[in-house]
Amino acid sequence: MDYALLVANFSTPDTAAWPRQRLLHECLRAAIRGGQLAPGTRLAASRALSAELGVARNTVLYAYDQLATEGYVVPDRRGTVVAPLRIAGAARPAAAPASLSRRSQRLRPSAPQASLQGGFAPGVPALDEFPVTLWRRLLDRAWRGVDAASLNYGDPAGEPELRQAIADHLRAARGADCVPGQVFITTGTQNGLDLCARAFADAGDKAWIENPGYGGALAAFRAAQLNVIGIPTDEGGIAPQAADWRRHRPRLVYVTPSHQYPTGCVLGLQRRAALIENARAAGALIVEDDYDSEFRHDGPPLPAMQGLAPDAPVVYLGTFSKTMFPALRIGFMVVPAGLAQPLDALLAGSAPQGRIADQRALAEFLRGGHFALHLRRMRRLYRQRRDAMVAALGRHFGNVATIHGGSAGMHLALQFDDSSIDDARVAALALEKGIVAHALSMHATGARANGWNGLLLGYAQVPADEIDAKVAQLAALI
Amino acid sequence: MDYALLVANFSTPDTAAWPRQRLLHECLRAAIRGGQLAPGTRLAASRALSAELGVARNTVLYAYDQLATEGYVVPDRRGTVVAPLRIAGAARPAAAPASLSRRSQRLRPSAPQASLQGGFAPGVPALDEFPVTLWRRLLDRAWRGVDAASLNYGDPAGEPELRQAIADHLRAARGADCVPGQVFITTGTQNGLDLCARAFADAGDKAWIENPGYGGALAAFRAAQLNVIGIPTDEGGIAPQAADWRRHRPRLVYVTPSHQYPTGCVLGLQRRAALIENARAAGALIVEDDYDSEFRHDGPPLPAMQGLAPDAPVVYLGTFSKTMFPALRIGFMVVPAGLAQPLDALLAGSAPQGRIADQRALAEFLRGGHFALHLRRMRRLYRQRRDAMVAALGRHFGNVATIHGGSAGMHLALQFDDSSIDDARVAALALEKGIVAHALSMHATGARANGWNGLLLGYAQVPADEIDAKVAQLAALI
Repeated sequence: MDYALLVANFSTPDTAAWPRQRLLHECLRAAIRGGQLAPGTRLAASRALSAELGVARNTVLYAYDQLATEGYVVPDRRGTVVAPLRIAGAARPAAAPASLSRRSQRLRPSAPQASLQGGFAPGVPALDEFPVTLWRRLLDRAWRGVDAASLNYGDPAGEPELRQAIADHLRAARGADCVPGQVFITTGTQNGLDLCARAFADAGDKAWIENPGYGGALAAFRAAQLNVIGIPTDEGGIAPQAADWRRHRPRLVYVTPSHQYPTGCVLGLQRRAALIENARAAGALIVEDDYDSEFRHDGPPLPAMQGLAPDAPVVYLGTFSKTMFPALRIGFMVVPAGLAQPLDALLAGSAPQGRIADQRALAEFLRGGHFALHLRRMRRLYRQRRDAMVAALGRHFGNVATIHGGSAGMHLALQFDDSSIDDARVAALALEKGIVAHALSMHATGARANGWNGLLLGYAQVPADEIDAKVAQLAALI
Repeated sequence: MDYALLVANFSTPDTAAWPRQRLLHECLRAAIRGGQLAPGTRLAASRALSAELGVARNTVLYAYDQLATEGYVVPDRRGTVVAPLRIAGAARPAAAPASLSRRSQRLRPSAPQASLQGGFAPGVPALDEFPVTLWRRLLDRAWRGVDAASLNYGDPAGEPELRQAIADHLRAARGADCVPGQVFITTGTQNGLDLCARAFADAGDKAWIENPGYGGALAAFRAAQLNVIGIPTDEGGIAPQAADWRRHRPRLVYVTPSHQYPTGCVLGLQRRAALIENARAAGALIVEDDYDSEFRHDGPPLPAMQGLAPDAPVVYLGTFSKTMFPALRIGFMVVPAGLAQPLDALLAGSAPQGRIADQRALAEFLRGGHFALHLRRMRRLYRQRRDAMVAALGRHFGNVATIHGGSAGMHLALQFDDSSIDDARVAALALEKGIVAHALSMHATGARANGWNGLLLGYAQVPADEIDAKVAQLAALI
């Protein structure tokens, strides 16, 4: 065995900085693992090797000693021998478990993920309008106030001052009926959906989602192996029949009542009331995803279902991804009073919290009125862009499509009157022209996508004066 | 109906700032929801009410209009009538779903969560030694470099530069065999365990954990409804028998090979090799939790199992909670090459990422050598504290207990020779004296906690010169 060559081949620019004993140690270990030094091979005597490599003998002794500690070599009375260790490589390039679980395979997007960057991508706010400098200042101030204890794991439910600030905001702005103890900080709506699916339902339990509906809810419920049932959703929102309550008695009912995703429709008060009564009777929990209700363009928002009835069986999910920015990764859930303590105990053992400075900065952003101010600015901006979008759609699609859900939020739905148009193909063509526009049918299941074919158009990211030209390009594709 | 009184009772200091139309609108809505204005009630004519309240008639018209929009009132030809809406309250104070799922109820800690604050609490680093000011500077610099696009959802696998920095560190420091594409950023080890349980196993699949072992793994696997099997673990680490592989063929095998939690034992090379070969043969995936292996007090750490064999069926879990601080909430997992692409596609649809500035600051912390420097400082510090702890235990427990696992990490296990001592009681008494010390049996299952009764003693948070006095207090309790 030519050790000098072995070391030469092992050396790289990275290893140049290493102490020689580490270089030799790792070089020999690699040779043993690589098979150049086979089990049973006797290594050169330390004195001989130190001479061959021109290194101190202690360097060699150190390397041999480490290899022995690690079990790669065994000293015997005549020297040092490579241990009789054999670890077979994989029989096939990818070993057996190199596959996802069955529940996960069912989640993997058949189509490539639709882009959320730019164009008419839905669910993304006007990022260039967020006051980053102010946020940076609040963050830095929060970090200046950090002591050793606040570097530790945090309250599993979140920072008390943030829970308080969120409860105050929800009561005033969303008609919610809650105390801070019912508010739990999450890393966003998806995290809240995962928690609901596992904490409040068991594998096999029935979970209703809207059809068409939000893919994230479908993903979370399937990952928890719930039995997901799509309930037809029309211009008035989710419309379960009496038979559904009898035949598919749900454990969870996922809804987006303030601005249905993707159609943008609003669930009327009568349907909300019926849903709450039926859910209560069925022992079901309503999961109210209130993702972009803060942006209401015509009249005030309907209050959240959470506060509609005393002790309503509703878990309210909120997020700062739409009102502030997605990269923040902070959302929250409000649970019924009776579930707060059990959930708290559950999370204490299974969901470590932290990011205390971030949470304090956010609490300050809310308490200091910066949040309300930003919302007012964004409402004005999104309303302008909504108006421009509606006008442009009227001009270019007036006689071939119907607009749904422009009264709130950051997106609307354009439904083609001619149901034979392939919206997925239109979306693909649009992408070729550099315009992101999601196909409505992508969010629906069932025969002919339950009648929903068209485009999901987010307008929050596009300046009003650029909307008409883009819409004209879309129209040209049909 | 005395509307003036209604408004007066509704008013609070908060409402003083409201526009009168909002005050009237919300006051009437509350009265309808509260039942003071029953369904069928005809509201006062707008002209009359504006006179009674001394407000502009438009204020009243606005309020009525909003209530109509929301469905609380219906206009009829003779005026405005409260809608025939009835929402029953809960039959019982807590409605049916006010309970956790069965899978969650099994997770709830029977004992109150053991404190992680101060004393000999395990798993928490010396928080007062972390260079917060430097970290604040890196964060602020990262935020200054943030553009609109980086406020958006991030790469579902994490920021490329952080994945690169982590892969470089793991190759050099942990003998890992990985490229950045195999590294996925998580919010910590618990998040990684949740992902493994759902992405790589299905409900009912068998998952092995060490006994005694880490409760967080048990919680994650149970939440995913895996069939959890505790494998007896001795001074040499997890020790499955041939019969276990035959009878309880696992899908996942959770291990803490570098510093077993809680016993602190190290899994020897021979057992590691056997585990990898058997797992490969069984089509199982090993989940290697390498939580505190960076701190090795005697000799170098054993390389991670992940890099021990070519294409080993190992998912490596790492965290910055021990090497930096828990509140950071950033960890990572390294998956086999064959699983990287499928996992990436899965996460794209179900796990939004962000915190781009945080991830860039962390990448800089690693690349800039600050991480390595901090590790060196903490190794020195923890070794001193380990030495003080071992010396104190020798003095005060020498003849009644055995020390395990002091050669690495931030904690060791003190096993009582007299197995009849109730360690939970000792821990409770210690807590009364203000000393946090977890009972070993808390982490074990089976008859007499599988022989592990004693104390789990973390020494990272306690200055060396304070350890002896605290240990003496513990000894006095027995």
